[in-house]
Amino acid sequence: MVGFVSFVGSGPGDPDLLTLKAVNRLKTADVVLFDDLSSGPILDYVSSSADLLGVGKRAGRASPKQDHVSQLLVDYASENVKVVRLKSGDPAIFGRLEEELTALRAHKIPFEIIPGVTAGSAAAAAANIPLTRRLAARRVQFFTGHDIAGTLPEDLNIKALCDPTCTSVIYMPKRTFPKLAQLLISHGLDPNTPALLAESVSLSTQELKHGTLASLAQDLTNEITTAPGVILLGPLSDTPQL
Amino acid sequence: MVGFVSFVGSGPGDPDLLTLKAVNRLKTADVVLFDDLSSGPILDYVSSSADLLGVGKRAGRASPKQDHVSQLLVDYASENVKVVRLKSGDPAIFGRLEEELTALRAHKIPFEIIPGVTAGSAAAAAANIPLTRRLAARRVQFFTGHDIAGTLPEDLNIKALCDPTCTSVIYMPKRTFPKLAQLLISHGLDPNTPALLAESVSLSTQELKHGTLASLAQDLTNEITTAPGVILLGPLSDTPQL
Repeated sequence: MVGFVSFVGSGPGDPDLLTLKAVNRLKTADVVLFDDLSSGPILDYVSSSADLLGVGKRAGRASPKQDHVSQLLVDYASENVKVVRLKSGDPAIFGRLEEELTALRAHKIPFEIIPGVTAGSAAAAAANIPLTRRLAARRVQFFTGHDIAGTLPEDLNIKALCDPTCTSVIYMPKRTFPKLAQLLISHGLDPNTPALLAESVSLSTQELKHGTLASLAQDLTNEITTAPGVILLGPLSDTPQL
Repeated sequence: MVGFVSFVGSGPGDPDLLTLKAVNRLKTADVVLFDDLSSGPILDYVSSSADLLGVGKRAGRASPKQDHVSQLLVDYASENVKVVRLKSGDPAIFGRLEEELTALRAHKIPFEIIPGVTAGSAAAAAANIPLTRRLAARRVQFFTGHDIAGTLPEDLNIKALCDPTCTSVIYMPKRTFPKLAQLLISHGLDPNTPALLAESVSLSTQELKHGTLASLAQDLTNEITTAPGVILLGPLSDTPQL
């Protein structure tokens, strides 16, 4: 007999943005492995008899190695228990999901994936803007501002990123955004392209900072907080106050 | 006194993929305007005393004009009632959200947006694959296979779409996919790029068809069903059976 692993998207942080299915899995779990960004009141749904393990990764802090997390998952799931692997947002988007799936497959441990609300959707909702706009933004792309070393990835598709008719959502963007902005502007993207930094989205500490590609890069050169954030960039709205 | 409009993402169709916040808004609504894809058991949460209006658009069928939907929203919200505008998936992604926001702003009607699980996330979860993969797929992009006339948009960013290190999620893809595939292959994308057609995702009628860029284009040349679907395209997984 082996256990079962549910990869569960926690959404952006507000417990009310959990899906009903996510709540069900949290309530019935024997073990919950969670990230820093999927903690707090979300974990109130977990039974008091369940084991709770923080395995968080967070910008600028030491965190358990990925292979250690995968090994923990395999160890727990080998014991005939219900394991929930809680991931912030949607598990399929910048969640390092593949490494953990591969480990489970190697040990023939059954699993399911429960999708969640990704931070880009939550940020757009909080700012009252759409990610796609008929004619103006017919494509939306999500990419990350840092590679495994914490620096801006070197193999960015500049033509894709400099597209003035696409909304970009940049995950883990803050530390590398000044360098990214310089790169995009040097390849022709308008420095006045609307930009929005959304921090701690959906939480009581949420902050939305509206600006432009150039102004936001300047702001993030001057000061970076440790709050988790995403940046939206592109033809965000025709409404001037946004 | 005016009313209040909640734009609510219904997720992909399974009522258990509604967020807690979405369920709350459905339960307390006086009026619910819903699309075809956000109907069925999801509407069981609506109070029996509320007005329910289908304003659906669906591939290949006649549907109410967008300005008619916006006018309905304004009319209801002018009557001091709680209006829910239910949209399938996430309202910010291919939901024609902006037209309705613009109408509400013009009439100074307050609103909120509640994000939901988009079809791309749900399709990836159903197929047990990630949308982003460390090194292999560091970008994910969502675009639509048809413009307002129902044909493939003419101003596609080919460099962005032909990127072998990006996962693409194509919304409303089926009728134009053979033409899109031809275009991408002619610009250098490998015809053997993994592709997945996910239909009626999260419902009991869900179907997942695995293939390649070329084989899926051939399948959709031969036969197209009316089931709603998305196509995932790109370096979807290293696991051969997927």
